[in-house]
Amino acid sequence: MPIVESIPNVSEGRRPEVIESLASAIRATRGARLLDYSFDASHNRSVFTLVGDPDAVKNATLALFEAALPLIDLRTHRGEHPRLGAIDVVPFVPIEGVTMDQCVALAKDVGATIAERFGVPVYLYEEASANPARKNLEDIRRGEFEGLADKMRQDAWIPDFGPRVPHASAGAAVVGARMPLIAYNINLNTNRLDVAKKIAAAIRQSSGGLRYVKAAGFLLEDRNIVQVSMNLTNYQKTPIFRVFEMVKREAERYGVSILESEIVGLVPATALMSAAEYYLQIERFGPDQVLENKLK
Amino acid sequence: MPIVESIPNVSEGRRPEVIESLASAIRATRGARLLDYSFDASHNRSVFTLVGDPDAVKNATLALFEAALPLIDLRTHRGEHPRLGAIDVVPFVPIEGVTMDQCVALAKDVGATIAERFGVPVYLYEEASANPARKNLEDIRRGEFEGLADKMRQDAWIPDFGPRVPHASAGAAVVGARMPLIAYNINLNTNRLDVAKKIAAAIRQSSGGLRYVKAAGFLLEDRNIVQVSMNLTNYQKTPIFRVFEMVKREAERYGVSILESEIVGLVPATALMSAAEYYLQIERFGPDQVLENKLK
Repeated sequence: MPIVESIPNVSEGRRPEVIESLASAIRATRGARLLDYSFDASHNRSVFTLVGDPDAVKNATLALFEAALPLIDLRTHRGEHPRLGAIDVVPFVPIEGVTMDQCVALAKDVGATIAERFGVPVYLYEEASANPARKNLEDIRRGEFEGLADKMRQDAWIPDFGPRVPHASAGAAVVGARMPLIAYNINLNTNRLDVAKKIAAAIRQSSGGLRYVKAAGFLLEDRNIVQVSMNLTNYQKTPIFRVFEMVKREAERYGVSILESEIVGLVPATALMSAAEYYLQIERFGPDQVLENKLK
Repeated sequence: MPIVESIPNVSEGRRPEVIESLASAIRATRGARLLDYSFDASHNRSVFTLVGDPDAVKNATLALFEAALPLIDLRTHRGEHPRLGAIDVVPFVPIEGVTMDQCVALAKDVGATIAERFGVPVYLYEEASANPARKNLEDIRRGEFEGLADKMRQDAWIPDFGPRVPHASAGAAVVGARMPLIAYNINLNTNRLDVAKKIAAAIRQSSGGLRYVKAAGFLLEDRNIVQVSMNLTNYQKTPIFRVFEMVKREAERYGVSILESEIVGLVPATALMSAAEYYLQIERFGPDQVLENKLK
């Protein structure tokens, strides 16, 4: 059975009863499984993780819009996290037996349906967007809900689906397809924040580094060490081991070593297996040699 | 559902119709799945890989004995591989949701049943044997079928189950429980066979090396390089990355580097994941962070 993951981000992180009713809407969709959800009051935002075949994930997304639209009004919404809409971002991620192209098709199908059924304008992003200026979520979201009406008057920001004006209470939705994202942190044997920031700048795409790396340097005050905090947005093209080795090499330049690394949340098994293949120099190896795959 | 793997080794590698009938006997057992089987004419031996819950694996093993006993006669059997019986060795391996202790209990139950139902004497081995002198398969098999009657007259070789004399045509069976075995080879950037042999001697348990490593050095004539060929008999206690690093260090001593490594056959996913954790220095990581595990 093909498996698609979706991780809708919703602009509600303070009213547990609302969040619970959205979780229920997903759970009630036949074939969809809600793996996890969490919310943050200061961000005033919740994140749901669900899986299923493409049809089930589509139906769960539509059920989420139907449940959320009457309950969330961005005109009175305040929170630290940037947002454009009530159901702010909906990515579709290929997990098993499904291609990126199929996830792109799913994003377009869901986007068109949302616009038609709920009157919410939809922007496609990442792999689902053919326009380089509208691939990046930050670019699409710039100006936020409060600036959306003005932004939509520009020709460059005609939505992919739906009306050319924001939905009164729900703004717009950003729908797309992307690879699984790995949240990966490397902690250094130093408290020098400048070193973490220089390494982050060296390795991230935005300042000349690796294509699928976002990175920032932080001080972990309670432990008196610094951290290079990263999002790896395509672990197949920019693998985790190459990132690790590059951070290690840059740290050496400042006389600093790696204390440890950590994976936050979920990671696909193949991202770790490929690291084992790299370091153990394994040749002639295929996924059918993994016992668990053979048992499936 | 608990999953046990069994890898019976049978003394028949030349008559395809016999091997096929044995495969059919396993396939016909409800709940058992035959994952793979292969045979070798010069060894005159076949190897079956099957999985299922403990009951299904027990029933498949008994079906294999029932099918094989009338067809294989060790009095006329010749082959390069050492063997003690018609169904020579039957290991049970814990794969998922089952402990080593449960596999030991399964080995004893199956061993007792084989002895009672078929009159074949059974020796327990590896984890199923409490006697240190009878844990090692090579020790039990020494003297082979031809020397078995004499060996069984010694008090040290009274079988764990069944008569104190060999089965006339089927000899004895060795039944036990062990960890999954990883066949792992490391190829070196040299054709110096003495280097491969010295490294093998340094790393294997029998000559002072790592507890769960068997190793030998070979020349790969067609490629003009040498290989350290290994069996890793407990990848949890002697992990693959530690073996790799030790071979690498020993090779450096001779000015030699590692060309590549290879895994022959199947490997449990966790054996590779633990290598990724080691090299990437990942802390605070658990199996529930692997996406595929979460989807189960």
